[in-house]
Amino acid sequence: MDDPVLLTGAGGRVGEAILAALGDDYEWRLLDRNPPAGDPPGEYVVGDVTDESAVREAMDGAGAVVHLAADPRPSAPWDSVLRNNIDGTRTVFAAAADEGVGKVAFASSNHAVGAYETDERTPGMYRPGGETLDGSEPPRPGNLYGVSKATGEILGRYYHDEHGLSVVCVRIGNLTKNHPPEDYERGQAMWLSYRDCAHLFDRCLQADYDYEIVYGISDNDRKFYSIERAREVLGYDPQDNSAEHA
Amino acid sequence: MDDPVLLTGAGGRVGEAILAALGDDYEWRLLDRNPPAGDPPGEYVVGDVTDESAVREAMDGAGAVVHLAADPRPSAPWDSVLRNNIDGTRTVFAAAADEGVGKVAFASSNHAVGAYETDERTPGMYRPGGETLDGSEPPRPGNLYGVSKATGEILGRYYHDEHGLSVVCVRIGNLTKNHPPEDYERGQAMWLSYRDCAHLFDRCLQADYDYEIVYGISDNDRKFYSIERAREVLGYDPQDNSAEHA
Repeated sequence: MDDPVLLTGAGGRVGEAILAALGDDYEWRLLDRNPPAGDPPGEYVVGDVTDESAVREAMDGAGAVVHLAADPRPSAPWDSVLRNNIDGTRTVFAAAADEGVGKVAFASSNHAVGAYETDERTPGMYRPGGETLDGSEPPRPGNLYGVSKATGEILGRYYHDEHGLSVVCVRIGNLTKNHPPEDYERGQAMWLSYRDCAHLFDRCLQADYDYEIVYGISDNDRKFYSIERAREVLGYDPQDNSAEHA
Repeated sequence: MDDPVLLTGAGGRVGEAILAALGDDYEWRLLDRNPPAGDPPGEYVVGDVTDESAVREAMDGAGAVVHLAADPRPSAPWDSVLRNNIDGTRTVFAAAADEGVGKVAFASSNHAVGAYETDERTPGMYRPGGETLDGSEPPRPGNLYGVSKATGEILGRYYHDEHGLSVVCVRIGNLTKNHPPEDYERGQAMWLSYRDCAHLFDRCLQADYDYEIVYGISDNDRKFYSIERAREVLGYDPQDNSAEHA
């Protein structure tokens, strides 16, 4: 990819994981509402995804987008997810379509399907051999943050079908640095290591696809999200497994 | 049902169809942003679903809700569907949950799945014996209005799972009075007569269900939406068929 890749929400944890591994691999255009903490590995635009002109300025000439910017709190109130996550994501997709960008990788979330984890199913589904979700199931958010992420997936579907964008929605699990969550079965089942996260988004920028929903977790022994679709369509080949850190 | 039934968007076409047939069958609480055209068959509140206090006032003491209020234009711009259809629907669901309302029937739309009608599939899918959608397929909106309706369905899923509301989403077809659309194959395939519309929403108020997505069309010879789920779960028994008006 020769054109710049726009990374929104570059200062967040997913952005940190991506840039730590792939900082030199792309010509990055970084967008964040906060100024950079250190020396950013690319052009840096301070701006908010709710500011359409800032998004359009950052999108100018981009060849692909990794859209991470959002209020990331599972407990975020409706007004915030409506503005930042739903309206902000629409602004990014619309600008990407107008710019003729090829690919958009959208950071969706395990919270888009959190309500599948019913009292009847858990903790069984957190353990090896339990039921798995594969991305074809309809959204069942357990909080309004999850509603906003499921809506982002639908916006992606629309901008693919009607505007020709290639879109992959990554339902990101539990991203932690160095080691998986401790004493937290659910978090271990949906662990995503930093290096697997960076590799997955690298594949999102390299592979060819139309519209996809995949799960973003490491190759954990215990998992209730299938990573088969990510392997098949994107060539995702995770290296980490929460069981190896037990 | 002894408690009042709140009907939002009472002055629209779906409201007209419902009230023409069921005006005397329920104690209606009618909400619309416009004053009533004639003598309304129930208490009438002039207010907008984007006005939380108006919605809460109208919800007070209600036993069920039929939520129709929306910008109904398939070409409606994003700002309008974001405010009226997405935020407004969230306001209605949240107020219904807080009020402890039992059932919410949400007027979704064929536009939530409009992009299934690809060039490859049409016009074949408008004809008898073609492929049908049954409500289990993920949303594929063909416009931003459809995005907003698919988002309303997800909000309904969330308010069912996390707040215990019984929710049915009705993907309404092409509602016309007296006779089906003429010279419009797609419209004939998804025709919903006024009396079948009223009967369907009556069943939504009477039947027991958890969370459902059903299609709202008459028993047309040509159809690409299945009405089996509506028959099975709601006891929907439509009387009209666009082919009998040919």
